Amino acid sequence: MAEKFVSERNLKFMLYEVFDAHSLLEYPRYADHSPEEFDMVLDTAMKMAKDTLKPCFTEMDRNPPELVDGKVKVHPMVRTILRQFGEGGWISGGADYEYGGQQLPDMINFASSFIFSAANYSGSIYPGLCSGAAHLITAFGSQDLVDTYVPKMYAGEWQGTMALTEPQAGSSLSDITTTAYPTDQGYYKIKGQKIFISASEHDGVDNVVNLLLAKIKGAPAGVKGISLFVVPNNRIDEQGNLVFNDVTVTAVYHKLGYRGSPINQLSLGDNDDCHGYLVGEPHKGLPYMFQMMNESRIGVGTGAAAIASAAYYAALEYTKERPQGRPLTNRDPNSPQIPIIKHADVKRMLLFQRAVIEGSLSLLFQCSKYADLRLVLTGEEQERVALLLDLLTPVAKTYPSEMGIHSTSQALQCLGGYGYCEEFPVEQHYRDARIHPIHEGTTAIQGITVLGRNITMKNGQAYKIYLEEVGKVIEDAAGDDMLKPYSRQLAKAVETLQKVTDHLLGVAATGTPELFLADATLYIELFGIIAVAWQWLLQAMVVRKAMAGGPSEADANFYQGKLFAFKFFFAYELPKIEGLSMRLINSDGLTLEMKEEYFAD
Amino acid sequence: MAEKFVSERNLKFMLYEVFDAHSLLEYPRYADHSPEEFDMVLDTAMKMAKDTLKPCFTEMDRNPPELVDGKVKVHPMVRTILRQFGEGGWISGGADYEYGGQQLPDMINFASSFIFSAANYSGSIYPGLCSGAAHLITAFGSQDLVDTYVPKMYAGEWQGTMALTEPQAGSSLSDITTTAYPTDQGYYKIKGQKIFISASEHDGVDNVVNLLLAKIKGAPAGVKGISLFVVPNNRIDEQGNLVFNDVTVTAVYHKLGYRGSPINQLSLGDNDDCHGYLVGEPHKGLPYMFQMMNESRIGVGTGAAAIASAAYYAALEYTKERPQGRPLTNRDPNSPQIPIIKHADVKRMLLFQRAVIEGSLSLLFQCSKYADLRLVLTGEEQERVALLLDLLTPVAKTYPSEMGIHSTSQALQCLGGYGYCEEFPVEQHYRDARIHPIHEGTTAIQGITVLGRNITMKNGQAYKIYLEEVGKVIEDAAGDDMLKPYSRQLAKAVETLQKVTDHLLGVAATGTPELFLADATLYIELFGIIAVAWQWLLQAMVVRKAMAGGPSEADANFYQGKLFAFKFFFAYELPKIEGLSMRLINSDGLTLEMKEEYFAD
Repeated sequence: MAEKFVSERNLKFMLYEVFDAHSLLEYPRYADHSPEEFDMVLDTAMKMAKDTLKPCFTEMDRNPPELVDGKVKVHPMVRTILRQFGEGGWISGGADYEYGGQQLPDMINFASSFIFSAANYSGSIYPGLCSGAAHLITAFGSQDLVDTYVPKMYAGEWQGTMALTEPQAGSSLSDITTTAYPTDQGYYKIKGQKIFISASEHDGVDNVVNLLLAKIKGAPAGVKGISLFVVPNNRIDEQGNLVFNDVTVTAVYHKLGYRGSPINQLSLGDNDDCHGYLVGEPHKGLPYMFQMMNESRIGVGTGAAAIASAAYYAALEYTKERPQGRPLTNRDPNSPQIPIIKHADVKRMLLFQRAVIEGSLSLLFQCSKYADLRLVLTGEEQERVALLLDLLTPVAKTYPSEMGIHSTSQALQCLGGYGYCEEFPVEQHYRDARIHPIHEGTTAIQGITVLGRNITMKNGQAYKIYLEEVGKVIEDAAGDDMLKPYSRQLAKAVETLQKVTDHLLGVAATGTPELFLADATLYIELFGIIAVAWQWLLQAMVVRKAMAGGPSEADANFYQGKLFAFKFFFAYELPKIEGLSMRLINSDGLTLEMKEEYFAD
Repeated sequence: MAEKFVSERNLKFMLYEVFDAHSLLEYPRYADHSPEEFDMVLDTAMKMAKDTLKPCFTEMDRNPPELVDGKVKVHPMVRTILRQFGEGGWISGGADYEYGGQQLPDMINFASSFIFSAANYSGSIYPGLCSGAAHLITAFGSQDLVDTYVPKMYAGEWQGTMALTEPQAGSSLSDITTTAYPTDQGYYKIKGQKIFISASEHDGVDNVVNLLLAKIKGAPAGVKGISLFVVPNNRIDEQGNLVFNDVTVTAVYHKLGYRGSPINQLSLGDNDDCHGYLVGEPHKGLPYMFQMMNESRIGVGTGAAAIASAAYYAALEYTKERPQGRPLTNRDPNSPQIPIIKHADVKRMLLFQRAVIEGSLSLLFQCSKYADLRLVLTGEEQERVALLLDLLTPVAKTYPSEMGIHSTSQALQCLGGYGYCEEFPVEQHYRDARIHPIHEGTTAIQGITVLGRNITMKNGQAYKIYLEEVGKVIEDAAGDDMLKPYSRQLAKAVETLQKVTDHLLGVAATGTPELFLADATLYIELFGIIAVAWQWLLQAMVVRKAMAGGPSEADANFYQGKLFAFKFFFAYELPKIEGLSMRLINSDGLTLEMKEEYFAD
């Protein structure tokens, strides 16, 4: 089994050299922390990942959750993981002091969760869900809800979930029919079905707290009638005991990958005794949930990049050790074979993975930094980072998710036949990775969000600010002779993006939303490639400065690797926008005109 | 479980409308057959696929082969499949009458094997391997070898295999060390290890006949010292009994997919008692084996397209039945939801799959037709089709294999969360599909074969002829007003191919083979897209003529679907050559210059 699953050197490069996490210490919110503490958090995260998460990575896959007598049995390590995360303060790391948190910057939490996801994606999901669900309660719930649920969730004793999907309401959340019936007891009675709910019942915890969307009886149709509820699997009775809250698991899904985490089907209120507690105001459930949803989308991007990272290091190790073939300039069959990492095509596959992973990671760190600044800046500055985060969230979800499939696939390819076998971890990474373009909003939904909502929101303000940010990097890089051609290439790419965007907004202006959004999936692909190119140029500038400063040999090698991955992205990945833009500029309505009956044979 | 897995209508379109299989009946080799017989073969293949192969598709995956007391236990249906295929004459269908075959055209056999692979890829592999191995014996083996082994293999009683790979010799076949020691008894004693050998031992047959590469003791180093042997797992002693031939299975691989077929590790001659029988002349093993290898490569392309076909029809069925969301022009949450096939992005995913599958299928049929004509034409005409087949074989292997991953992935995406679950067949198709870019020569090897060998072979003759063939279609299509723009687009694409090829041959001329071939994987991708565009234009011409003839309503819908898939390919897929050519034209040696130590962190 490959030892390495993330590059700590690269995480520190991102945190300190590219995004200057230390600069956050100037703000009162983060003032209690220190550079040493940041390092210590990362070191401890690595230790947890190596000692707790990684050793059960394969085992959790081979022994997936099962429904036994109405209870979901998970791997025994799940309980250990949750308790260790609770005790170590990992679940509450980013939370405010007043809720028992540590007010750690999101960038630091993000780095930790990247480490955890790379070590064992399924294992990392349990505490991650607790964190997001608790945050939803602290943000919008009553003091009573906070007091009752949050400490247990932060301790890793109770599991948090987000319960949205129903049999008839997946991408179309407006079709939720789970109903909340008001009572005069301060709670609602919940009745309905939920499907595909991660970790919504398992024996690694004593209770599960579902943050659940439902419609209060008589609420308006569509998304404007959705409310958010806390619906525990076991509620607390008047004596303070946990009693069954009429939440039943009706099925556990058996999945392609991501097998260490139970995805369940729930039935609520079969005996008319499921209590739900309203969070915040009625009918505002969807906007509330979108706080957790947006955090989850970034989390999905993180998981995707992290899985790709683990697969990459497994592939790297193999290609260094596996002798096969000879240089094309030496065909003497009596000479010894060379490690396959010396073949150009293998290096191409490895560089592809680095270009994807480290480019994704940079975009995710960028979002993390916006999230941190959003909490400490004010006025226009705050609005600016909030808009950037909003605009980029679907991209930071989608680019790593879609490219993570290709990246893990190339990792698998590096191992040849062995990559296809269970004795190496890469086939599992390949299976695990496939979930990401699906959950927390499919790629199609993300594409429609970016093109149909984010580009035009607030009169195109977010998009305008984004172009300014990219423009700054282009301008800065133009001042470095070596980077100048890349700066020019990115500038041209941005022109392409603008041309495509203008064209599509022109289509939208003709009142044909279906034509406007028909290729939104291609649009977010184009957008994502350019966003990652921006992040690569940003990294390259940092590298150039660092190399001028006479780095150590190890650092010099690291920076050289960065430069190659950067150049690779511009040489092999960025040109993909040519084909995409050619299509996007041609709104011929092909997919709209295709009729169902033409699919008959 | 989805019912449909291939379109019979499309197979007949390919066979009769595009490639005119009936025209083969004019040649003496095929003169005994008739159009009615061709149809009957297809109908019977469909029946076998539905009745025998498809019902155990999932079961064979869930109960993969296991090594029990030195024997490999496979699903009990394997024996049934092999016997039914043997009795039905499916294994020997293409063989000459003199060997008990039926001299069926390869196009007909190809159509059948596409059907079988789509129904159950793992299940279809057993008879497929028998066929290829027997063909190798009839082509190059002695009459004695033919008489001893071929009838049993054609009957499906004995399994055939191709045994090439060794622990140190995968892509680098020149490093084979399995040794054949001459004896004065008419056989050789074989000693060595083989890995990743499909079906090389299992309890669905009474014997296994390995077509095995080894080096005769003292043979020249490298590929020029490789010989081909028949090495049965059980040999026939003087009394005519089957006795153990000292071939031991040391492991069965557990794999991501393709689980119904055992891939084994073999040890030969542990007790110095493994007899091998030389096929043909010494040291000519590799060219001999390449007959089977090239057939297998086409077989891999077939399997890849077939798996994608099965996944597509499962996705199509789901998208027709699953209601979710509303048209973008109607946001009334009280209106009923629509089947997701009505959403543009879902139609885009479906059309993508059709464009890939039917484009691949056409290229494979084209190769099949060349294979048929190679057997019946003479002189220059024969040379022409032989060169075309040789040139296109790696492309017909690689395009479906690489795109099959994306196609099955899009099928999975069509099902959303359900696509990720084992209760639908698509996740298995996705796993099964991943083997194809690996086995029978990785994509990297195929790329080097096309660019480094095939383009330049016989003074570039094959490449020249290929451009002529594509040129003919471009010219013909230019005469149809509707097709004219597509004809022009393909002509431009061919110019791009020529520009890239000329550039790369220029690099080769500078004596830098590593630089020349560094991006051979991208070259075969570019080449494949254009080859499939050629095939789509060919299909479109046939469709145009058929539509002018006033087809039935069902046919009209079929032809409309074809036209949309054709247009889709030109709108969404062909533009991908822009980014690829941009990279290929820039031979900056990036991957060559990347050093191993830069991967350190």
